[in-house]
Amino acid sequence: MVQQLKKYIQDSIDVSADELDVILQYFKPLTTKKNELLLHNGESSQRTFFVGKGCLRIFFINEDGQEATRYFAFENQLATALTSFITGEPSLEFIQSVEHSDILYISHRDFHNLLKEVPQWEKFYRLYLEFAYVNNTKRLQSFITMDALERYKNLLHKNPAIVRRLPNKMVASYLGISQETLSRLKSKI
Amino acid sequence: MVQQLKKYIQDSIDVSADELDVILQYFKPLTTKKNELLLHNGESSQRTFFVGKGCLRIFFINEDGQEATRYFAFENQLATALTSFITGEPSLEFIQSVEHSDILYISHRDFHNLLKEVPQWEKFYRLYLEFAYVNNTKRLQSFITMDALERYKNLLHKNPAIVRRLPNKMVASYLGISQETLSRLKSKI
Repeated sequence: MVQQLKKYIQDSIDVSADELDVILQYFKPLTTKKNELLLHNGESSQRTFFVGKGCLRIFFINEDGQEATRYFAFENQLATALTSFITGEPSLEFIQSVEHSDILYISHRDFHNLLKEVPQWEKFYRLYLEFAYVNNTKRLQSFITMDALERYKNLLHKNPAIVRRLPNKMVASYLGISQETLSRLKSKI
Repeated sequence: MVQQLKKYIQDSIDVSADELDVILQYFKPLTTKKNELLLHNGESSQRTFFVGKGCLRIFFINEDGQEATRYFAFENQLATALTSFITGEPSLEFIQSVEHSDILYISHRDFHNLLKEVPQWEKFYRLYLEFAYVNNTKRLQSFITMDALERYKNLLHKNPAIVRRLPNKMVASYLGISQETLSRLKSKI
């Protein structure tokens, strides 16, 4: 798993072997159970997670009491409740391990230590923020500019693993539709 | 206006006088007319703007053909169609000068030159991305968790200049409501 993270970092920034060691020592392993919550809403998001194996889900509860999923992170992806990680304020989002997962995590404090210790970590964080910003905006735009069928087709095209690996309930919560509507869309394609 | 930008940069990062000169030389002045469009949707966002005087608006057209405003930038704030600025893809957003404005702008190319020339520019950009991410997420959450009256009260509390300075039409497009609904909310408070 550490090898995966090593590759992920080296694919994104130029770091010396020594700097890479400094970075990696801050990441701690964690094994989670299926459906385990790693962050409840109302708590401050103090960890960023790297998925070695499994899947994490970031979601919140909307005004109708329904779960709305913002993001799924599979193998070799980072995940956190980013707004709270940035501001330190209580998170509106939950983080859940939807499969039995092997994870590496870094604490908020160590993440910010790295910004001082390894100059390239600024770039690493910047690239992560760019990705997160673009991803969130495209999610929002998809709700504004596409109907449910278009969103489903788009998901099949861009991220088929979500449909293939995860239960209908979670796919529906990502598309902002009911499970019944999802079944109907599936039968149309 | 250059003094304002200088202060804005110095408030955000530690830079030497020489580095500050390098940064400032990349910014060019621009004077805009009321309602002038600085970016059309479909174009790639190639400039980031700093408002010296006036106001810029970032908006898009939603599926009903209505203008939906994502962001207003007043004096001493940055603005761009950030997703397109990051990806280079055609923008879904427009940038409009809603008042006669005095602006400084930096091109995408020069912005990225600065990332190589001034190490602290990474941090400057990172702080801008953090702000933009948090701002966008809170906007989205306000639509999910608040009704129109709550959103209006929240706006009066957090950003009264929007209500005070701008025409009702634009305030309504920011709150995602009609002008009639906005008038009704105003009469309630």
